[in-house]
Amino acid sequence: MAAAGKTTAGKITVLGAGSWGTAFAKVLADAGQPVTLWARRRDVADAVTRDRENGDYLPGIRLPDNLAATSDPRVALDGADTVVLAVPSQSLRHNLTAWRSLLAPDATLVSLAKGIERGTLRRMSEVIVEVTGVPDDRIAVVSGPNLAREIAEEQPTATVIACRDHDRAVAVQRACTTGYFRPYTITDVIGCEIGGACKNVIALSCGMADGLGFGANTLGTLITRGLAETSRLGAALGADPMTFAGLAGLGDLVATCSSPLSRNRTFGARLGSGESMAQAQAAVHGQVAEGVKSCSAIRELAQRHGVEMPITEVVHRVCHDGFHPREMAGELIGRKTKPER
Amino acid sequence: MAAAGKTTAGKITVLGAGSWGTAFAKVLADAGQPVTLWARRRDVADAVTRDRENGDYLPGIRLPDNLAATSDPRVALDGADTVVLAVPSQSLRHNLTAWRSLLAPDATLVSLAKGIERGTLRRMSEVIVEVTGVPDDRIAVVSGPNLAREIAEEQPTATVIACRDHDRAVAVQRACTTGYFRPYTITDVIGCEIGGACKNVIALSCGMADGLGFGANTLGTLITRGLAETSRLGAALGADPMTFAGLAGLGDLVATCSSPLSRNRTFGARLGSGESMAQAQAAVHGQVAEGVKSCSAIRELAQRHGVEMPITEVVHRVCHDGFHPREMAGELIGRKTKPER
Repeated sequence: MAAAGKTTAGKITVLGAGSWGTAFAKVLADAGQPVTLWARRRDVADAVTRDRENGDYLPGIRLPDNLAATSDPRVALDGADTVVLAVPSQSLRHNLTAWRSLLAPDATLVSLAKGIERGTLRRMSEVIVEVTGVPDDRIAVVSGPNLAREIAEEQPTATVIACRDHDRAVAVQRACTTGYFRPYTITDVIGCEIGGACKNVIALSCGMADGLGFGANTLGTLITRGLAETSRLGAALGADPMTFAGLAGLGDLVATCSSPLSRNRTFGARLGSGESMAQAQAAVHGQVAEGVKSCSAIRELAQRHGVEMPITEVVHRVCHDGFHPREMAGELIGRKTKPER
Repeated sequence: MAAAGKTTAGKITVLGAGSWGTAFAKVLADAGQPVTLWARRRDVADAVTRDRENGDYLPGIRLPDNLAATSDPRVALDGADTVVLAVPSQSLRHNLTAWRSLLAPDATLVSLAKGIERGTLRRMSEVIVEVTGVPDDRIAVVSGPNLAREIAEEQPTATVIACRDHDRAVAVQRACTTGYFRPYTITDVIGCEIGGACKNVIALSCGMADGLGFGANTLGTLITRGLAETSRLGAALGADPMTFAGLAGLGDLVATCSSPLSRNRTFGARLGSGESMAQAQAAVHGQVAEGVKSCSAIRELAQRHGVEMPITEVVHRVCHDGFHPREMAGELIGRKTKPER
């Protein structure tokens, strides 16, 4: 274990058996090493072990034989050198608090969670540092155009592994490189996390435009200007602006904004086509899209740093102030003409 | 005419009545000033004048009353302070040669043409300088997420006006700002033109991926890495890398790669789903997608400047060397792992 986290990933555990946690566990197992997957629900863990399938989150996907599942965090974390955190962003703090005493001293913590914590306005890696006391160069973040279902189907996908410690990033990269999954390394954790959080809000706006009957020009404009405001926020927080031109910025944004599998995009389309928030929520059985929650936290973070984010502002107004998506076009197009940057 | 091209656009003429030329003429007319549209075919000019419609290229779109059409270049260019060039890229040299003696001495030339001239490997603004002898600070380029049909339908769209002379860019910007069309100014003509030329090749690759059954992750990856190789070529030619993060880079690329209206994307999808070049061409009545022609010129330009463009390379091999699109995935994903930049 002494060498763990430096040049090899060592023993690997994935905490969280939703669609992305399960798909990433499959990638790691397909890359060659045995993987332990922790599921909150015992029936999910049992089904994975018995049927080689996670029927609730990735139905129809055969999971590899070197992937073992458990619902006991002690079993999952025993001797784990690399711990992948794949729980929802708003419950990460709660879960980690229960797990921190079980973490090995030099373990690499890999975050798959995307979002800004409500109330504290913390990024996920900041939550991890706060709860576990682990130094931030032991935390890696995975982000990119990564729709879980498509990765589980082994469609060609690229991603980014961000870690301040380049050697650890390379160890994680080696552990998840397969014939269909190509990870690149970077050191900009902040940019990676801001890109992942903001894309859901922009995807909501793209969905609204779609619901209003607008086509590819509007999509291209919203993605471009949405990425520009994301980059401005990132720069204010210390991110490298080039990260947003990469897979964790642009790549993730394009995948989320163009896929019919994206919950944010489809929720936005309901609003754009004239449904109220209440109607749209009822249609998806009360599940609110992530961007609806995070737009307010991101807006607050932007205001705190004096950053202008007109698309996030409009999405917030539609989701929380009764503004109609139709007014979005006028709001965004009708501003004073100026240079692009 | 003395003040023309400085703070106002003056008398405006659009040369070329295809879908983009006609849609841009409509934007200019909707912005308030009278516009003359030149059509190569007399029947098209007559139909525009008589029916207020260009049935061949924009059927169903009512053209404004302050738009006059002619098929006589002398009439069209008489006293024109701003001349918009909207002819196909490979015939720009030929057309301009016929028109150069008719151009007013201080006219602003606005290029809508996208592409690299075959054989000479020249950008469109370079062709304009060569043929007319006009100094390059009098040439403006319009580029962005600008599918003509959507603009004609007055969907919200943003674009970029690039000109080395900022005042001229602002004059053109003022002349084409409407409630649905929002132009931004930049001074980077090279970046604008390279973005516009390369996007057709990347759109072909996205179409191929779609035809192979791949989804949003692959689309996000191809757009991101495609924009990265476009930026590398641009940087080698003297462009500002930030242009590619803007509307003329990213915005245009996203619109072209995601629209079912894009000829390059749909042509690529035919190849991806197993049709041969001959079959795909026959299906579209012999019309070859622009990217099929330009991928070889762009590849040649890249080789001349020592720039690696793996997606362009693969598209070239599929289009001209009998390579199968299926091999694209392995070629792009199977390369040695490395940092993102």
